[in-house]
Amino acid sequence: MFQRFNEEELKNQISSSKEKLEQYKLQGLKLDMSRGKPCSNQLDLSVGIFDVVKPDSCFLTSTGTDVRNYSVPAEFTGLSEMREMFSEIISVEKDLIFIGGNSSLNLMFNYFSKLFMKGLPDRNIPWNNYEKIKFLCPSPGYDRHFSITEYFGIEMIPVEMNSDGPDMNVVEELVKNDGDIKGIWCTPVYSNPTGCVYSDETIKRLASLKCKSDEFLIFWDMAYVLHNLYGEIIKIPDIISECANYGNENRPIIFASMSKVTFAGSGVTCLAASKKNLASFLETARVSTIGYDKINQMKHVKYLKDLDNINLLMGKHADIIRPKFEKVLQIFEEKLGGLGIAEWTSPRGGYFISLDVYPHTAKKVHSICRDCGVVLTPAGSTFPYGKDPDDKNLRIAPTYPDIEELDFACNILCEAVKYAAATEIISNK
Amino acid sequence: MFQRFNEEELKNQISSSKEKLEQYKLQGLKLDMSRGKPCSNQLDLSVGIFDVVKPDSCFLTSTGTDVRNYSVPAEFTGLSEMREMFSEIISVEKDLIFIGGNSSLNLMFNYFSKLFMKGLPDRNIPWNNYEKIKFLCPSPGYDRHFSITEYFGIEMIPVEMNSDGPDMNVVEELVKNDGDIKGIWCTPVYSNPTGCVYSDETIKRLASLKCKSDEFLIFWDMAYVLHNLYGEIIKIPDIISECANYGNENRPIIFASMSKVTFAGSGVTCLAASKKNLASFLETARVSTIGYDKINQMKHVKYLKDLDNINLLMGKHADIIRPKFEKVLQIFEEKLGGLGIAEWTSPRGGYFISLDVYPHTAKKVHSICRDCGVVLTPAGSTFPYGKDPDDKNLRIAPTYPDIEELDFACNILCEAVKYAAATEIISNK
Repeated sequence: MFQRFNEEELKNQISSSKEKLEQYKLQGLKLDMSRGKPCSNQLDLSVGIFDVVKPDSCFLTSTGTDVRNYSVPAEFTGLSEMREMFSEIISVEKDLIFIGGNSSLNLMFNYFSKLFMKGLPDRNIPWNNYEKIKFLCPSPGYDRHFSITEYFGIEMIPVEMNSDGPDMNVVEELVKNDGDIKGIWCTPVYSNPTGCVYSDETIKRLASLKCKSDEFLIFWDMAYVLHNLYGEIIKIPDIISECANYGNENRPIIFASMSKVTFAGSGVTCLAASKKNLASFLETARVSTIGYDKINQMKHVKYLKDLDNINLLMGKHADIIRPKFEKVLQIFEEKLGGLGIAEWTSPRGGYFISLDVYPHTAKKVHSICRDCGVVLTPAGSTFPYGKDPDDKNLRIAPTYPDIEELDFACNILCEAVKYAAATEIISNK
Repeated sequence: MFQRFNEEELKNQISSSKEKLEQYKLQGLKLDMSRGKPCSNQLDLSVGIFDVVKPDSCFLTSTGTDVRNYSVPAEFTGLSEMREMFSEIISVEKDLIFIGGNSSLNLMFNYFSKLFMKGLPDRNIPWNNYEKIKFLCPSPGYDRHFSITEYFGIEMIPVEMNSDGPDMNVVEELVKNDGDIKGIWCTPVYSNPTGCVYSDETIKRLASLKCKSDEFLIFWDMAYVLHNLYGEIIKIPDIISECANYGNENRPIIFASMSKVTFAGSGVTCLAASKKNLASFLETARVSTIGYDKINQMKHVKYLKDLDNINLLMGKHADIIRPKFEKVLQIFEEKLGGLGIAEWTSPRGGYFISLDVYPHTAKKVHSICRDCGVVLTPAGSTFPYGKDPDDKNLRIAPTYPDIEELDFACNILCEAVKYAAATEIISNK
């Protein structure tokens, strides 16, 4: 509709928005919405974890390991109980699971690090030896995935993200012809930031991809597999078995985390991969650490108990954050609906809403919001190298603020979107 | 004395030792003395840590950070309180300290990983680009240091370890002439396994080393700085300041750990380095992890309180393990003293006793002990590539077994030492 405004109407819009934004600025809001952080109420849900391991606890696991001491070599892969729990969560058999520390990002980084120093099992060609390596980066995507890829000097190729996963026509075409492409980043459930869930068809096409490089890997980040907003339990096909159907069982490397189940930055994480990939990863892991924190694993096992209980907990998380998601969507609908200057996703899980504003205005919207005290994730950061070709995507993280702050912040955001769009449209007239 | 035995006397020794060892074997002992692990009584000293952070605790740090949530960028280097505590422990200013996870070995590995991918600050030449890199490895030394160096394809040069640190005449000569030598491993306080403490003179010579390579680093592992057996508080010169005196402040990278203060594998660790080195390390660290576990940091800060209190705790550790060290030394003295077939260290701290048996018999002693149910650290593992040129060094880890087991195990060990020495001597007659 905005596009059909005449110059006068646009000018009116600009001056009315400007006035409102000036007023917002005076109210001195300070709100950081840049990261997908749980709010205090969510953190309070898990403080019971500090009661399950006490001074007079039994510190022995089911196999007789004292979790307070160095691990025995056989349990270097993590406590049996913890591996069982993750096995239920990600539907991968327990023996293919390695328990890490508090950061799944760290496991991803370590996997790349191992690839660059030692290469893939059997081949043993360090990726450092290759002149060029490329990775497919469905975008918008997760900025911290892209930071890792960039750190290792990997060339990132953005691929459009659709509502059922990456554009597989493009992916298939690219990997068929370019042997430098050695992998793809995927967040198959409630993707960051669009919240989409990969369809079974997309997963099948990823598993059966015909790649010029025989070293192609799928980095499969199941960060949000438990994080539904509406009580739906998402079961996607197990990517290892799916790949194995096509003889590609060494293709996927799976990651998952408890960071937003219990405490952000003090959870437990896992990596899962084929027998061969896991064995090869373990060779490096055994040199690189004395072992991961088993006390934290025991705390998680005792507190979370089993998948049913975890889903109950996730329901309580959802009860806290669902109204926040809905508030954002409601304000977007009220303020931006039908204007033809913005589109957004309505995710059923995860931690983000993806907002596409009028092309070439995302940076401007970000900066206006910042001036009014609302810090959003930097525009562009959902694309490789921080470069959104259309400068239109913004990642909205509704979980951390309380609902009144969020309401206020979204009104600021919508006004900024309108102001920037009108300004952009008028400058092109 | 053994060397002066005639053939008959040696044969008698062999048959008497053999008989005793056969009897030991029948008793079915199963004892793993291969690692420097605390015993359960030591672990019990710190279970109070599970009481200091409770469901109704305040989770805010002095700067207002909720430790249950992701860290704010300013606190990525660790909780201020935790950095202060390590600053006291290692006598390095707080701003040069980075708090890691549960494994200092992991920080060492990560530092190498960063060097190989990105190189040193200013230079920015990834060590991967060099055809050859060498490291000096004072030996006997810590096998897991050597594993890291080997992983990265670094050539390890053993340097003899004296009672006041590495043989500095050799070190000085080597680094002056060979530009491929880019570093040295040091455990300056209660070195693993000899237990020696570097003298001020050694430290000064390390700090002032004239190296052909201008990338020379000192990996300074302060693993045992708190671990005295006799209440002595060891204060060695601060290596960063010492190096700075000679314009070499970017030379040392310091590591320390709480693993054997509270719980093995669930402690808190730190890395300290010059401002420039730290900033460069942080660039990698920020990409490689979402941050380290702040709840565990808070637990440690609240439970350990300050250095005086830590030293009280370490005194309790010492009370438990000192008798074990003394029992080993007493049996060595009784059974091996004056025989001219073995030498050992009498450390005043740390986790090990270094035992040199008769040359070319350490492997044999290890295997005899294993057959009698006593698993020692593999012979050779205190040397680079697991190759002890004289096959004489064994690392004794007295802390884990109870004192009766230890007594029994040491009698077996001494008998094995005598048997192997007599057999070796007679074969050379």
